Amino acid sequence: MNSNNDLSEPVINEDIVKLWESFIIVRNFSETLCKSLVTEDYVIQSMPDVSPTKWHLAHTTWFFETFILFKYLKDYKHINPKYSYLFNSYYIQAGERFIRGQRGLLSRPTVKEVYQYRKYVNDHVEKLLNNCDGKILNELAPLIETGINHEQQHQELLLTDIKHVFSINPLYPVFADILSPVVKSIPKIDWVEFEEGTYEIGHNGNGFAYDNESPRHKEYLNSFCIASRLVTNKEYIEFIGDGGYKKAEIWLSDGWATVEKELWDSPLYWFKQDGEWWNFTLNGKHKVDLNKPVCHVSHYEADAFARWAGARLPTEAEWEVASEGLPLEGNFVDNGNFHPVAIPENSNGVKLKQMFGDVWEWTSSAYLPYPGYKTLPGTLGEYNGKFMSNQMVLRGGSCATSKSHIRRTYRNFFPPHSRWQFMGIRLAKDV
Amino acid sequence: MNSNNDLSEPVINEDIVKLWESFIIVRNFSETLCKSLVTEDYVIQSMPDVSPTKWHLAHTTWFFETFILFKYLKDYKHINPKYSYLFNSYYIQAGERFIRGQRGLLSRPTVKEVYQYRKYVNDHVEKLLNNCDGKILNELAPLIETGINHEQQHQELLLTDIKHVFSINPLYPVFADILSPVVKSIPKIDWVEFEEGTYEIGHNGNGFAYDNESPRHKEYLNSFCIASRLVTNKEYIEFIGDGGYKKAEIWLSDGWATVEKELWDSPLYWFKQDGEWWNFTLNGKHKVDLNKPVCHVSHYEADAFARWAGARLPTEAEWEVASEGLPLEGNFVDNGNFHPVAIPENSNGVKLKQMFGDVWEWTSSAYLPYPGYKTLPGTLGEYNGKFMSNQMVLRGGSCATSKSHIRRTYRNFFPPHSRWQFMGIRLAKDV
Amino acid sequence: MNSNNDLSEPVINEDIVKLWESFIIVRNFSETLCKSLVTEDYVIQSMPDVSPTKWHLAHTTWFFETFILFKYLKDYKHINPKYSYLFNSYYIQAGERFIRGQRGLLSRPTVKEVYQYRKYVNDHVEKLLNNCDGKILNELAPLIETGINHEQQHQELLLTDIKHVFSINPLYPVFADILSPVVKSIPKIDWVEFEEGTYEIGHNGNGFAYDNESPRHKEYLNSFCIASRLVTNKEYIEFIGDGGYKKAEIWLSDGWATVEKELWDSPLYWFKQDGEWWNFTLNGKHKVDLNKPVCHVSHYEADAFARWAGARLPTEAEWEVASEGLPLEGNFVDNGNFHPVAIPENSNGVKLKQMFGDVWEWTSSAYLPYPGYKTLPGTLGEYNGKFMSNQMVLRGGSCATSKSHIRRTYRNFFPPHSRWQFMGIRLAKDV
Amino acid sequence: MNSNNDLSEPVINEDIVKLWESFIIVRNFSETLCKSLVTEDYVIQSMPDVSPTKWHLAHTTWFFETFILFKYLKDYKHINPKYSYLFNSYYIQAGERFIRGQRGLLSRPTVKEVYQYRKYVNDHVEKLLNNCDGKILNELAPLIETGINHEQQHQELLLTDIKHVFSINPLYPVFADILSPVVKSIPKIDWVEFEEGTYEIGHNGNGFAYDNESPRHKEYLNSFCIASRLVTNKEYIEFIGDGGYKKAEIWLSDGWATVEKELWDSPLYWFKQDGEWWNFTLNGKHKVDLNKPVCHVSHYEADAFARWAGARLPTEAEWEVASEGLPLEGNFVDNGNFHPVAIPENSNGVKLKQMFGDVWEWTSSAYLPYPGYKTLPGTLGEYNGKFMSNQMVLRGGSCATSKSHIRRTYRNFFPPHSRWQFMGIRLAKDV
Repeated sequence: MNSNNDLSEPVINEDIVKLWESFIIVRNFSETLCKSLVTEDYVIQSMPDVSPTKWHLAHTTWFFETFILFKYLKDYKHINPKYSYLFNSYYIQAGERFIRGQRGLLSRPTVKEVYQYRKYVNDHVEKLLNNCDGKILNELAPLIETGINHEQQHQELLLTDIKHVFSINPLYPVFADILSPVVKSIPKIDWVEFEEGTYEIGHNGNGFAYDNESPRHKEYLNSFCIASRLVTNKEYIEFIGDGGYKKAEIWLSDGWATVEKELWDSPLYWFKQDGEWWNFTLNGKHKVDLNKPVCHVSHYEADAFARWAGARLPTEAEWEVASEGLPLEGNFVDNGNFHPVAIPENSNGVKLKQMFGDVWEWTSSAYLPYPGYKTLPGTLGEYNGKFMSNQMVLRGGSCATSKSHIRRTYRNFFPPHSRWQFMGIRLAKDV
Repeated sequence: MNSNNDLSEPVINEDIVKLWESFIIVRNFSETLCKSLVTEDYVIQSMPDVSPTKWHLAHTTWFFETFILFKYLKDYKHINPKYSYLFNSYYIQAGERFIRGQRGLLSRPTVKEVYQYRKYVNDHVEKLLNNCDGKILNELAPLIETGINHEQQHQELLLTDIKHVFSINPLYPVFADILSPVVKSIPKIDWVEFEEGTYEIGHNGNGFAYDNESPRHKEYLNSFCIASRLVTNKEYIEFIGDGGYKKAEIWLSDGWATVEKELWDSPLYWFKQDGEWWNFTLNGKHKVDLNKPVCHVSHYEADAFARWAGARLPTEAEWEVASEGLPLEGNFVDNGNFHPVAIPENSNGVKLKQMFGDVWEWTSSAYLPYPGYKTLPGTLGEYNGKFMSNQMVLRGGSCATSKSHIRRTYRNFFPPHSRWQFMGIRLAKDV
Repeated sequence: MNSNNDLSEPVINEDIVKLWESFIIVRNFSETLCKSLVTEDYVIQSMPDVSPTKWHLAHTTWFFETFILFKYLKDYKHINPKYSYLFNSYYIQAGERFIRGQRGLLSRPTVKEVYQYRKYVNDHVEKLLNNCDGKILNELAPLIETGINHEQQHQELLLTDIKHVFSINPLYPVFADILSPVVKSIPKIDWVEFEEGTYEIGHNGNGFAYDNESPRHKEYLNSFCIASRLVTNKEYIEFIGDGGYKKAEIWLSDGWATVEKELWDSPLYWFKQDGEWWNFTLNGKHKVDLNKPVCHVSHYEADAFARWAGARLPTEAEWEVASEGLPLEGNFVDNGNFHPVAIPENSNGVKLKQMFGDVWEWTSSAYLPYPGYKTLPGTLGEYNGKFMSNQMVLRGGSCATSKSHIRRTYRNFFPPHSRWQFMGIRLAKDV
Repeated sequence: MNSNNDLSEPVINEDIVKLWESFIIVRNFSETLCKSLVTEDYVIQSMPDVSPTKWHLAHTTWFFETFILFKYLKDYKHINPKYSYLFNSYYIQAGERFIRGQRGLLSRPTVKEVYQYRKYVNDHVEKLLNNCDGKILNELAPLIETGINHEQQHQELLLTDIKHVFSINPLYPVFADILSPVVKSIPKIDWVEFEEGTYEIGHNGNGFAYDNESPRHKEYLNSFCIASRLVTNKEYIEFIGDGGYKKAEIWLSDGWATVEKELWDSPLYWFKQDGEWWNFTLNGKHKVDLNKPVCHVSHYEADAFARWAGARLPTEAEWEVASEGLPLEGNFVDNGNFHPVAIPENSNGVKLKQMFGDVWEWTSSAYLPYPGYKTLPGTLGEYNGKFMSNQMVLRGGSCATSKSHIRRTYRNFFPPHSRWQFMGIRLAKDV
């Protein structure tokens, strides 16, 4: 049960073993993801949205400490009382917290101390689990599960953040020196049609889900078509070549203002060299692979591309209806590519390809509460609900998402100008 | 037909007379609204959202010139070629335009010249109408109707903008020295229930409507309750007194950040004097009238108030369903109050009071396209569609809205932090 | 004595008559300067450094009210008690004041009311003078003289501010429709040499002077040369043509940063049209006259030009020593050109031409206290002393300065990036 | 000669040995200063003025590489070609450079790689010296001396920068865990008088000096008094207690604006705890020692304090004249205190105490060129001259300055709002 030490105490039951295993696997995976980093890499915050790697490692640890150990483990003592202040993210009810935009100004605690903090908390979670009865376990299990899912979200952020950190360094460090196989030819887009009618969407209550996926409820949808695959770099380069970034009339007003202010002329991490498009990836700098899905575009760019293409983005309800019955397979972080991959022609029998993994797919839906939505009670109620403003929903997970983390009903959300996540485009159409 | 001159030419038909009358009534009303202003008042832009009065008067004129006269009136000549540049607001396809935030830096053209510009364009619209045949009239009528509605929107902005201009002046000018009657007692809130089911919302095609109100389409709604009247100042003061502006847990995250940054502790235009709440209105400075609807609150404040009250805001579909069959009556700009009024107890037989007029009612719906939405072709396609991002829908019109301008299906929209319009709160609840 | 009314009371003596005449001439001149303005022009603040015309007219009036009438005229009553707040500029000891950057957001008091305020204060100053004895007169005279000089300074600002206001208006209003005579040929620069030694500079105590011109004191100067005339537009265009704005090595570091940030490539108000340099002036838009002194350059540009020319700017001590014995003549606001003029070849017998009037001449001296400097006691002590930081000294007056206002020892001062005053360049050299 | 390896080659002559020793002692001292740092500490840039420790270590190395090795060492090869870009500070003529404000966003090169870069350049400088003839040595010596002095300046910045980095960390790391001896009683201030007359100031040409200390030239000074010691914390606390930070009338206008904007109420690094003043130092957090010189005050605060005390700051000429004949002794970085120390009563026979070391002393002189000043030719001409704008001169060195670096004629300079250097106050007076 403890991955490092001998274990003398008997386990209470299978549930505890399973819970512990889920816990320690995810905890260890965070550290595995950092194996190519040097100490200095852990410290940097390259823009306000980015957090330093060591902050991610510490904050996910703080989460277990704050919501579980302080409450359930008698006589639990801080390893350092200032950590509660330093590693709280945005939980106002959990007390004061260090300014978000200055996380990169802290050299201490050191990376080594953060790893000690992780081990300290892991050990105490183990101790707590080894000594809990069934009643407590029933309270603990959903909290630990939430903590596990929380850490998986931060694993994804850790990757997108270190990508940004590396990208602004003129030495262009390489995170993972691998190359996904070249795919010579990919299928063309087919349009898969769905009929008008009343559908149910939202989580059905089986297994873990965030509060924002509930309640399951009915939505009336007009008939619609959805594209059989993601938009590729090749298609996006056509959009650029056709003056996509210069035609105000295809952009949302806020999007056009952003294009003008930020001087956008291509996705994030793209640059032109000798007349060709290159991009910076976690695998280093490479020519843009035409057959791979386009990535690191904002909602504004996705929306403008769709309008240019004579299509539109799907609503989140359409996306969820379309995903019904699809196997939860795709290019996840588990595959170790750290970048979207091209889909080979005749790849498999499913009509809708790349719905999971590769890139988060922008929808045309604002991130709002489902009818009847209730936040969790207490401090964890701040997890999702308070962000339901000025953000758009994305669906399906990405190449930085854990397979065990994603669901059909999963609602990711970012402001429409965000680009540093693995974000891409799937088109939809009215019938 | 011409309000100023004798008219020698015979009118073509009744339709033209009606169209001209609608036109000239609205055109004249813009000028009537300005009758208490001095020249200096027309010039000021007190914040980027505000435009100077003379700009509103000129821009609404530019609208008719640009979309009608240049296209339909042969040999029409500019009164000044620079006006196309100076008075274009945001129509990118209509050419370059002067920087929005600097509209208040222009002393010229003078107020007098702007009035001359208005007369010049009015006269040419009259000339055009007097000489058009039925085919052209069919093209002109919807454009003129759009121009009329456009001008009515700017009449509302003219009022909310001059209110802001006056409010920051330590001399506190009074726009209209009147006082609405005092209402001693108002009805308590009742909850009106609506059943679950599939409803149709959106414009049904009869009469003028903006493109964003179409297409009419189905929405599935859970059963819901909606409050029988608006939230009052008294109720809002209870919210303040209970620490409403200090409880992070009832606010959206962006809302809380705004409260902290802007140091909000009450609605816009409120201030405390000797322990009592006062507010600046178009009728001067007065103690806050407890029975009047609360006004000049942002979406963030409306949302926090609703959560504090154990309720929520209605969706725009719920609001529209609830408004079915209600008479289009209320406290509009036509009433000349320029401020919301209290509703007397036992005021009339309708269950849902104050649905129209008084204040725009914040909904919980983001401003997004209806399923199947298409923008108008050409430059006028920029009127509504491109703003469908980062804004929330408001319904019902206000004390600054013309009665002839509002509809059940009318979708107004502003960013969630906006407060300078006459914006208030109606509560809703799940059943 | 009173320019408007009959005068029944006898004057006390000649000193009072003289004082009153100096006063009323300057007061009237402020209003004369505004004769081409329309009401709207008085209201605008086109950048934070600029104040609206009506603010200048009111503030100079406030000065007499605050420092004289409130103190010396028994039972003097406010025309409006808020004016003390609205028209205080920066005198912290005179109480709270309206935010400087928002002076252009005030439509009220109206222009008419400001003129009434001026008349009201003038009348009361007259009343005060008519009833004062010799002892009081001795106290009043220096205060009134300060007020007169203060108003003359604001007359200059009024002109440079309205120039800026007009310059950003695409309609380019013309302030004064006159043209100075064309000068075909101007003298070349001669270098006038001065010997090393100990000199005295500073005010000698005869007549009015600001506190910052005292005490008169000794400075040791190396021998130096000073140019016989101002740098011309022709010479400045050569500098531009030689890449002056692109050679970092000739600029002060702060200057270069300003060039890069503000995208400077020519003096303020210059623009290129069909390959030729034009400039906006108070006389309208014209081609740059090659023989006129260059104007509207910052200290950074003056310094870079001098370095490019193999010379340097004079220190203020050098300038003052060089000006010894020169007649106080030049192109002042009294001449009514409102722009610098070219100096004809063989114009007169003085070696150093254009030392007074035309443009303020940037020196290489920081604005610092003279040895032994004391500020005035009380609130007027804030007039000059507190600005002795981050500013550079300019000498000689400009085409917007009154002849009766300037002195050899006069120290004007502005931050080194300022350009909207009539500022130009005279070169100096080591021997 | 090489501090690490045996040395087999014979040295050419004594001059080379001396030059090498000066070089390697200073180079090693930079690394000695870092001995208490952990890797993460080297990376942080806590505000734009601060540079990361590893940047200082690399930039000082780049200086030798750029101005010496590339020019004089045949076949010298980059260790990494990007370093020229990454470690250029502000030398525009040395090519493009990385954005200053983003130096803290670079995790690579690592600390270890920066140390390798140092060794690589040291080794090549040694190689160059071992193989140069007398002619080349004559060219090299002043460049190496400049590089040594440059590195000493960065040693001081390295200390003040890491102090700032540590100060914003809630864990308050301690740089050097030492305490200077407590001094119970210090001498009162005596006023030392100097006579009016013509003095010479500036460097006399013996030994190394920066270009900005020349030419030696005459200045006429009025008679003046200068205080016999620095202002203490006790005296500064009296100033605070007397409302020093609340009396606008004693501040320069720019200073008062800074007080209001930055909410200054005490020197940088001071905070109040249980009614007592504490300060953060390189030796950790301590109660403010009343007898030590006040430190980390801006020019604005020094100037306001002096005015409050009925005195003024000395001019740089007065300071230099007063320092004539004083031994170059004091509390320098060599003493290892890393903080100013108190001066014991009856400490020694010199009248003017603490003139060197402890804190840089703000003068009332703007940083401007001396009469006849010429910059160095070429890129090194950017070293000092281009910063002669908007800065004030400080004199005497500090507890972070090397004894071998300071001179009587040394002109340090910082903008008047700067506080993060060891900056303090010595008073002066007119006689």
